[in-house]
Amino acid sequence: MKETVMTVMMKRQNGSAAVPLIVQKYGGSSVATPEKIKHVAARVKKRLDTGAPGFNKMVVVVSAMGKTTDGLIALAKEVSPEPPARELDMLLATGEQVSAALLAMALRDLGVTAVSRNAFQMGIETTREHGNARIQDIDLSLLQRDFQSSSVVVITGFQGVTPDGDLTTLGRGGSDTSAVAIAAKAVSAGAETLCEIYSDVPGVFTCDPNKVPGARKLDHITYEEMLELASLGAKVLHMRSVELARKYGVILYCASTFSEERGTYVVKELPEWLEGSVVTGVTVARGQMKFVVKRIPGDGDVLTAIFQALALAGVNIDMIATTSDDDLSFLTFTVLDGDAETVLETIRACMEENGVKNWAVEPGVPVAKVSAVGDGMNAATGVAGRVFSALRRHSIEIRGISTSDINISVLVDGAKADEAVSLLAEEFELRR
Amino acid sequence: MKETVMTVMMKRQNGSAAVPLIVQKYGGSSVATPEKIKHVAARVKKRLDTGAPGFNKMVVVVSAMGKTTDGLIALAKEVSPEPPARELDMLLATGEQVSAALLAMALRDLGVTAVSRNAFQMGIETTREHGNARIQDIDLSLLQRDFQSSSVVVITGFQGVTPDGDLTTLGRGGSDTSAVAIAAKAVSAGAETLCEIYSDVPGVFTCDPNKVPGARKLDHITYEEMLELASLGAKVLHMRSVELARKYGVILYCASTFSEERGTYVVKELPEWLEGSVVTGVTVARGQMKFVVKRIPGDGDVLTAIFQALALAGVNIDMIATTSDDDLSFLTFTVLDGDAETVLETIRACMEENGVKNWAVEPGVPVAKVSAVGDGMNAATGVAGRVFSALRRHSIEIRGISTSDINISVLVDGAKADEAVSLLAEEFELRR
Repeated sequence: MKETVMTVMMKRQNGSAAVPLIVQKYGGSSVATPEKIKHVAARVKKRLDTGAPGFNKMVVVVSAMGKTTDGLIALAKEVSPEPPARELDMLLATGEQVSAALLAMALRDLGVTAVSRNAFQMGIETTREHGNARIQDIDLSLLQRDFQSSSVVVITGFQGVTPDGDLTTLGRGGSDTSAVAIAAKAVSAGAETLCEIYSDVPGVFTCDPNKVPGARKLDHITYEEMLELASLGAKVLHMRSVELARKYGVILYCASTFSEERGTYVVKELPEWLEGSVVTGVTVARGQMKFVVKRIPGDGDVLTAIFQALALAGVNIDMIATTSDDDLSFLTFTVLDGDAETVLETIRACMEENGVKNWAVEPGVPVAKVSAVGDGMNAATGVAGRVFSALRRHSIEIRGISTSDINISVLVDGAKADEAVSLLAEEFELRR
Repeated sequence: MKETVMTVMMKRQNGSAAVPLIVQKYGGSSVATPEKIKHVAARVKKRLDTGAPGFNKMVVVVSAMGKTTDGLIALAKEVSPEPPARELDMLLATGEQVSAALLAMALRDLGVTAVSRNAFQMGIETTREHGNARIQDIDLSLLQRDFQSSSVVVITGFQGVTPDGDLTTLGRGGSDTSAVAIAAKAVSAGAETLCEIYSDVPGVFTCDPNKVPGARKLDHITYEEMLELASLGAKVLHMRSVELARKYGVILYCASTFSEERGTYVVKELPEWLEGSVVTGVTVARGQMKFVVKRIPGDGDVLTAIFQALALAGVNIDMIATTSDDDLSFLTFTVLDGDAETVLETIRACMEENGVKNWAVEPGVPVAKVSAVGDGMNAATGVAGRVFSALRRHSIEIRGISTSDINISVLVDGAKADEAVSLLAEEFELRR
């Protein structure tokens, strides 16, 4: 049934060839002022006017204007120090309704038939986790109905409705997820779909262009690589939206709202004509602390107790490594800067509780995690060796290492992070 | 079915006696800041705590905070000079959702179980006239569901949803109408219901307390009197909400959000123990112009043409009177100040079109309409005479008169309006 609806929707009027559905998403900085909203409207109109023959339907998902969401949260806190999550979602959901209505007005002003829709009106069903809900379903037949009279349906991002009719929000970056979910639903109904994410960032780069002169913008990147980059600190796309795109095979395109510059496609596999490079990008996660806990009794019970105690204290640990010497273990890990004190207290209490004597902890050392990411690593050998030698040649000490199929991460002194990224960009030819 | 639901809802848990439903409404100035919202929450809690035994359920309808609606309209105009009405409603409806969510938070913070609901969630169905929609139905079973877990349901005023799922707004003063409509629905389902309208005005006065020293606040006023006062310029309650209250017999209570002072009940008939006064209040409509059109050919065709032409030009005319001399008519009427020029042009064009010669028009004279309103007039005689002589004794010229069962209006020079009101307040003992 849904397939029929979508197939009909995506066919040209003569019924011969399918016309793709474009889902665009504009972030908060892209719709921060009335002028910017008018600019976005002009871009949407241009996309409609210059699209493939027969192409005349678009979905546009919007975030709240600029810092609206932060402003609403501050307002809530003036009324109640800990506002209930259900009411906070009710409040926050207004932000996207404002920008959606304004964008529809701006489009109508340009002669584009457009209509705005909120989560109720689009049947965006989510789980009940207020503030961090997950989309369960979207009723595309409502979109189909709107497309009978409108070229553009402007949809509020970031929000949904539970089966009980309560408003929810999807968490930070949630509007990306809204856009990808709509595209995913269309893809799974058999429609050719492209999801374009516009922000103030012009695409995905091999390294941070603000830190590495000559960092190159990528034409293509795979979902896997993008997921590694997103989790490692690159801020172009929200991780959940990339996961969803990968799951349903939605092609993503990230570009700037404010330029005509070509952006980056996020795809399953790089096009065959593209010579795959071993490393696609280098990213860095700063503000970490490295700890070494020494001489832990070696049967594993105390180690387990330490992990449990840290989890209970709400500390996320990363880059875990253990070594042992006779029946004593040595534990190395990193945490975020702000958690350092909690870590020391928690470990001390844990050792005391378990009657451990003679243990020690090295005070935290500020480090950064520098990661080289690339689908090509899978097939290539010697990448770890190249990372090591590039850094050691310049006397950068490697204080830890972890690897996955498509990622090598090393810990370096916090102060050396930028230099390390530059060296790896050089080594793997990531510059223009 | 609905009756069953409401009857159950309004019974005490032991099933014996009905407990009344209280619907409170707080206007924009009452919820203008986080502090004022907290103040309203405290009032609601107090009302719950000090109510009749078994009384523990309330509906609270809210307007948007302060000047939010005006701000949103200005924002829309920055995007589009003439924003489409459908999108404007989508935009404006966010204002009440913000205040409803914040009030629910403030109530929860005081330990009151409260939940906010918007028009979708309350099933407030309206006609499709965007910007001026009329409520068609409200689904009280949704309220019943909420009352199973909450003492207070905070509902967005001013808005509704069409059968197609589009958001609408009810026009200026619409939140009053939302509150009365909910109360009316409960009344028609057999529940004992009171609708309390809170604003920055402490009730209904015999005359404007800012103009007439000693103007008295009324304990009771009838729907009929209130309708006359509302249409004549008193701004305590929106006319549509009073009409609705009269139609369904909803008892209204108007009082100030910011004091504990007793307000005014709006009821079908004054309580029997209350000695009815002949005149309940005096009100004034300022900024009017009186015109006299002379020597109009008397067969009525030209008169009709003048009325039609003025209506087409968007001019509202009031206090119409005609006299005739032989076969020539004289037409007197009033319009709002701003329409004076349009009136002259329209009448000139109309006379030319109809080939009327020898006619004339007196240029507009600034007047005010002073009205004495009172259910008691119906039975009393000589009220018109008392109005006339009170004004003439002080040499105030009466430039026109119109009467209904419960209202006598006279036109006086604009500059004499305040004096006229004072004289009538004196004559009919409307002062403290």
